Amino acid sequence: MKSVQALGAEFLGTAFLLAVVVGSGIMGERLAGGNGAITLLVNSIATGAGLVALISTFAPVSGAHFNPLVSIMMSVRGDLPWKELPGYIAAQFGGAIVGVLVTHGMFALPLFETAGKPRPGMNLMWAEFVATLGLLIVIHKTSRHRVEVVPAAVGCYITAGYWFTSSTSFANPAVTLARGFTDTYTGIALSDVAGFWAAQSLALLSVVLALAWVRRPEKSGA
Amino acid sequence: MKSVQALGAEFLGTAFLLAVVVGSGIMGERLAGGNGAITLLVNSIATGAGLVALISTFAPVSGAHFNPLVSIMMSVRGDLPWKELPGYIAAQFGGAIVGVLVTHGMFALPLFETAGKPRPGMNLMWAEFVATLGLLIVIHKTSRHRVEVVPAAVGCYITAGYWFTSSTSFANPAVTLARGFTDTYTGIALSDVAGFWAAQSLALLSVVLALAWVRRPEKSGA
Amino acid sequence: MKSVQALGAEFLGTAFLLAVVVGSGIMGERLAGGNGAITLLVNSIATGAGLVALISTFAPVSGAHFNPLVSIMMSVRGDLPWKELPGYIAAQFGGAIVGVLVTHGMFALPLFETAGKPRPGMNLMWAEFVATLGLLIVIHKTSRHRVEVVPAAVGCYITAGYWFTSSTSFANPAVTLARGFTDTYTGIALSDVAGFWAAQSLALLSVVLALAWVRRPEKSGA
Amino acid sequence: MKSVQALGAEFLGTAFLLAVVVGSGIMGERLAGGNGAITLLVNSIATGAGLVALISTFAPVSGAHFNPLVSIMMSVRGDLPWKELPGYIAAQFGGAIVGVLVTHGMFALPLFETAGKPRPGMNLMWAEFVATLGLLIVIHKTSRHRVEVVPAAVGCYITAGYWFTSSTSFANPAVTLARGFTDTYTGIALSDVAGFWAAQSLALLSVVLALAWVRRPEKSGA
Repeated sequence: MKSVQALGAEFLGTAFLLAVVVGSGIMGERLAGGNGAITLLVNSIATGAGLVALISTFAPVSGAHFNPLVSIMMSVRGDLPWKELPGYIAAQFGGAIVGVLVTHGMFALPLFETAGKPRPGMNLMWAEFVATLGLLIVIHKTSRHRVEVVPAAVGCYITAGYWFTSSTSFANPAVTLARGFTDTYTGIALSDVAGFWAAQSLALLSVVLALAWVRRPEKSGA
Repeated sequence: MKSVQALGAEFLGTAFLLAVVVGSGIMGERLAGGNGAITLLVNSIATGAGLVALISTFAPVSGAHFNPLVSIMMSVRGDLPWKELPGYIAAQFGGAIVGVLVTHGMFALPLFETAGKPRPGMNLMWAEFVATLGLLIVIHKTSRHRVEVVPAAVGCYITAGYWFTSSTSFANPAVTLARGFTDTYTGIALSDVAGFWAAQSLALLSVVLALAWVRRPEKSGA
Repeated sequence: MKSVQALGAEFLGTAFLLAVVVGSGIMGERLAGGNGAITLLVNSIATGAGLVALISTFAPVSGAHFNPLVSIMMSVRGDLPWKELPGYIAAQFGGAIVGVLVTHGMFALPLFETAGKPRPGMNLMWAEFVATLGLLIVIHKTSRHRVEVVPAAVGCYITAGYWFTSSTSFANPAVTLARGFTDTYTGIALSDVAGFWAAQSLALLSVVLALAWVRRPEKSGA
Repeated sequence: MKSVQALGAEFLGTAFLLAVVVGSGIMGERLAGGNGAITLLVNSIATGAGLVALISTFAPVSGAHFNPLVSIMMSVRGDLPWKELPGYIAAQFGGAIVGVLVTHGMFALPLFETAGKPRPGMNLMWAEFVATLGLLIVIHKTSRHRVEVVPAAVGCYITAGYWFTSSTSFANPAVTLARGFTDTYTGIALSDVAGFWAAQSLALLSVVLALAWVRRPEKSGA
């Protein structure tokens, strides 16, 4: 029963996260009169604020991962049973897609569309690697040491990430795929999704290896 | 006696909330030189910040609902006695209207006016449904699990809501009606108020039904 | 000895507060290319953020009032000995003036100047009354119930206040006077200072009377 | 072993800090269409948000100084063993430089370059003195009294500092030097680095002397 509620929380939370990301991008672009910095500012403030609200809301139910990489890291750490992992990931991908459809409905757009916006290049992949690495470190450390700061830490990290990485810090495979299905400001051409996924996965792999390395001396040393 | 202070808190808090919403809209539009994104950015930051301050201030006195839907949800949950509910709702509507008059006084506008700004369409009603559903979930969960995060969670949710919903997230029947009485940036034509109310009420109904459904297995399961 | 440190904290804190208010106004106006909304946005974000930092820093030493009205309210409440009050007020006025001079030095302006910017009218005085009333209520309630939220509540209130009041919420006689001595964005002509002071004092008087009224039944009732 | 992790935290944290500072400056300038206030707004919000995330993340490991002046102050206070100080400072300078290279990679710029942007003048040095003095006071007081507020206090202080000081508050010798190696928005000509360092050092000296003066009476008085 707990598990059903957790899956619902991951589904709903990820759906609202995508609504915030995609919706604020649409609204920002419509109103900004062509000033790209104002559009991204609006997008980054809304996303960071939305994350604070959503993580505060769903963390007690499911941990508020909203991100397959975070769920995998939690399983590796021993904080999410491996058998729960597939459900979490399915809920996250499903919620992300539904969130995009819901948003299109709010803005009177066709519910289903694919993105035309290219996001190519090695430097964007490098940026996704850096962005994801930072996100996973922030979540790993804060969730271990003082769980109350996680919402603000993650919200602030992503607000900064929209600006300090050239890729605007997707840092989440479910978010990346779902953004392939909106032909608006935050879209990403489906052909560029794989590159983002690869970079994000490498960052997860790095964190997992580092965790394994750090744990080994702990066992023999303590 | 406690009840009188609680009603005063709901009245004052909702009045200040409307002052923040309407006043920052007026100031933002006057100064933004026609850039709609800057006006809404200012409006959303001021409203979110104002909510953090006002909820922090009045939560220990009345719960800081400032919203009839929240008060009804609290009564359904058992956290606000049903006999207190009518007073709360009256204080919220009264405070909201007074807040608009006070604001008009600050900006040297006619105290009483009705809004000309249309906000029609099924997609805006869908947006109000989504916005209200999210707000009620955020408040329900955070007020249950960790009451100290409510001010930041609600403030951040509404700041995001101004951007990710096409209706700019009124999500509050008292706020909606009061905004019918200002012919400024945040106004809504009185003829469109009923549609917003309907969408907001449906969201409350959904939450109440979900609460009833969730509680049933708890009783038989624990 | 405690007292000396408290006076130092009030002096330093108020000086930095004025540096933040006046300095961010200068920088904002220089860079904004004539867009008044961007200047005030920058000014309001910097001031709110600065207040969070300064109140967090000095609250354990002096209470971090930085405002004669707050100190008087604390004396009326019994949280600041009356004999400490004159020193607090002197430190606040002195710090405010010094903060303006320090800021002029940072921006290579004449250290001493008087403001030319008029801020006249009954509606601005009404706005100052509303702004000060709200500020005092926020501080009174949050400092009583949960002192850790005071920095965020006050910072957020003032960020909102810059926008929702037509006077931009000076709400502080020491700040008001000191801003009479800068001929930059945040200045106020010395001839308009008295009107702001009068409105601010009326708000304090209202709060003091309300406190006296609320306390009376408590004594006979408890 | 603890020490190795602490040095890693200082290195990583300072690297990410520079990525946030330099990267958000690049992105902001590219998108802002020449409006200097929007570029600095973006830069200041990203840096403040980034600091909240990074300090929350690394504080339990190393204290999250990311700044040689802070580490020296902590050694003077007795909170960082003197023998750890050289490693901390080396990690901070190393991390800062690497952070700039990483950022150049994300934005497809030459990894290594030197800044052309002059930041001369006595008034900028005065601003750096004021900015650093304030930062050290904020960190000294908040880390003593309530360590949980440090991330928000420092993040907010720096967001404000970008605006209220004419130098935009570098306030950190490692950050200053590293910004000498980027020819982008946040760069500083290497010939102006020494002046910033001098002003920053004077601020540290003032704080150290004040600490020594305050401690003396404590010893004889308590």
